[in-house]
Amino acid sequence: MARRKATQPIQEFPLIRQLQRRHERRSPLIRKGIGDDAAVVSIPAGDWAVLTTDLLTEGVHFDLRTASPASVGYRAAMANLSDVAAMGAVPRLLLVSIAIPPTLRAADIHALYRGLMSACDQHEVHLIGGDTSASHQGLFLNITLVGTTARGQALFRKGARVGDGIYVTGTLGDSLAGLQLLTSRSSSQRRTALKRIDRDFLIDRHRHPTARVREGLWLNQTQLATAAIDLSDGLSGDLRHVCEASLVGADIELSHLPISPACRAYADKQRLDPCTLALAGGEDYELLFTVAARNEQKLERQARARRFLVTKIGTIRPRRFGLHSLAFDGTRVPLPITSYRHFT
Amino acid sequence: MARRKATQPIQEFPLIRQLQRRHERRSPLIRKGIGDDAAVVSIPAGDWAVLTTDLLTEGVHFDLRTASPASVGYRAAMANLSDVAAMGAVPRLLLVSIAIPPTLRAADIHALYRGLMSACDQHEVHLIGGDTSASHQGLFLNITLVGTTARGQALFRKGARVGDGIYVTGTLGDSLAGLQLLTSRSSSQRRTALKRIDRDFLIDRHRHPTARVREGLWLNQTQLATAAIDLSDGLSGDLRHVCEASLVGADIELSHLPISPACRAYADKQRLDPCTLALAGGEDYELLFTVAARNEQKLERQARARRFLVTKIGTIRPRRFGLHSLAFDGTRVPLPITSYRHFT
Repeated sequence: MARRKATQPIQEFPLIRQLQRRHERRSPLIRKGIGDDAAVVSIPAGDWAVLTTDLLTEGVHFDLRTASPASVGYRAAMANLSDVAAMGAVPRLLLVSIAIPPTLRAADIHALYRGLMSACDQHEVHLIGGDTSASHQGLFLNITLVGTTARGQALFRKGARVGDGIYVTGTLGDSLAGLQLLTSRSSSQRRTALKRIDRDFLIDRHRHPTARVREGLWLNQTQLATAAIDLSDGLSGDLRHVCEASLVGADIELSHLPISPACRAYADKQRLDPCTLALAGGEDYELLFTVAARNEQKLERQARARRFLVTKIGTIRPRRFGLHSLAFDGTRVPLPITSYRHFT
Repeated sequence: MARRKATQPIQEFPLIRQLQRRHERRSPLIRKGIGDDAAVVSIPAGDWAVLTTDLLTEGVHFDLRTASPASVGYRAAMANLSDVAAMGAVPRLLLVSIAIPPTLRAADIHALYRGLMSACDQHEVHLIGGDTSASHQGLFLNITLVGTTARGQALFRKGARVGDGIYVTGTLGDSLAGLQLLTSRSSSQRRTALKRIDRDFLIDRHRHPTARVREGLWLNQTQLATAAIDLSDGLSGDLRHVCEASLVGADIELSHLPISPACRAYADKQRLDPCTLALAGGEDYELLFTVAARNEQKLERQARARRFLVTKIGTIRPRRFGLHSLAFDGTRVPLPITSYRHFT
């Protein structure tokens, strides 16, 4: 049994009751939420349930010296909302487990849950349970998110076919640029060389990414996408997952990668190629999806009507083609393996 | 990004593929298992889904110096199976997140999953997904278990009424006795004083507890139980949860607590009161449930026919009565707060 060093020891059952009081919401789906041996929920008749889980560890996935507990909670929720979005499902219910180190105060834990639930509230996702425990060292946070989708309707990584257009939502590389701004030790002169508005935009994109839930639902319901994944490990790595699952290759046009003006300005100041940020940057939480050639115009028309930013960045090729990118100078090189890794 | 110290570094994606190859099973419920952004499952039409999650941390919930990785996995699965059993539901699907410290080898991880899945295979529970990550220090394991139950049918902590009989399945205190045998520093003489068969029984009850899934289903389907909980924190603490949720009190007869011969022999040798082990011992994973007085005979008859061991240990009283226990000498004392805590 762990002993807490914090001046105000955190008690498990009072903490659970506080979290329940602050964050429990009524929903016709929830038959029993927090406070029993298990939660009991009513999945809409005939729907499929979509389940995803993520375990985030301090020092690996986040750093409490540069990120606030609220931001850690927010981003953890968004990572899971994004996984459900990539399946084309409606996120619904949330279970949160937390292992609390002796260095954290009760106020930190409540801030973390506030961050978590502010991300969830945007999508009417309700907390139905979890677990709280002590950790001897480091904060560990596990999120399980449950979504629903109509029976027979879901977007998978598998399904991309030769000739399909490769699309992404939003802009790429912003989150990595924001992270670098937060953690870089470069001189303050360089930092201030970037306009305040650009700096704020990039840091906000890192701290408060947006899961593309509406876009995923649209792609699933219209059946316009043949495959989909969310960009959590970086375009280069995640495109590889789609190609492996679909048994295909891919050709990416670097000049087509959607880069925000702020990210481009940041890359200029840092003398970086913005495409490197776009290819390697994890945690953009945009969607990457493929569309049959005959549906591309329809897709782009619908996206404009819905004010969704989507960009065609390449084409699915046969498997033997591998994964390549066409550079600005017209040369074609293998897509680098620069995926964001938390592991080795 | 963490660096692994182990001689054979564990790679995330190959590990996931190995786990998938070894542990993925087909089931009509599973539309997409391991290997996409989320799992997709088909809950039987009209059923409720039951969800529980547990985060286990090294040094708090288990000690890899006294427990094998396989045993840690087995017990983690059983703890969650037991939560689903206490709801009267059928356990179905499993998500496992693991944060791996640099000290663990790939063989340890596979042993842990073997333990996990050997518990799950007993109940035809299938692995559908999870997450793997590095941990700077200590092994962290999060299990999310999904069960199903017929709409409108579940056992809750709430529901016990004044006059109901209080029952438990199986015997109590064995797991704590087994843990003490494994970790005690008492002289080897004392240890050998306990018969080998008793020692083995108690250690096995600690290492390989059995979730009372069949008993939970029976209690739920027959609607004989008015409330239920599983004994994970100890009888004293868990009975308190039922009483708080049901707004009642309870009177326990200590002479009625079901104590195994092995546990009684252990308590004798250690000069302990076996009732203390039964009241305080966590992780027995027996069920505690309440039954209306008019149904007690019927319940006991059905239990005998099914060869389920159930024992009446007390009676639900009004809330103002509090929680009391009747000792062997006829005195009635408040039930001690001796619940097993992982937190403070």
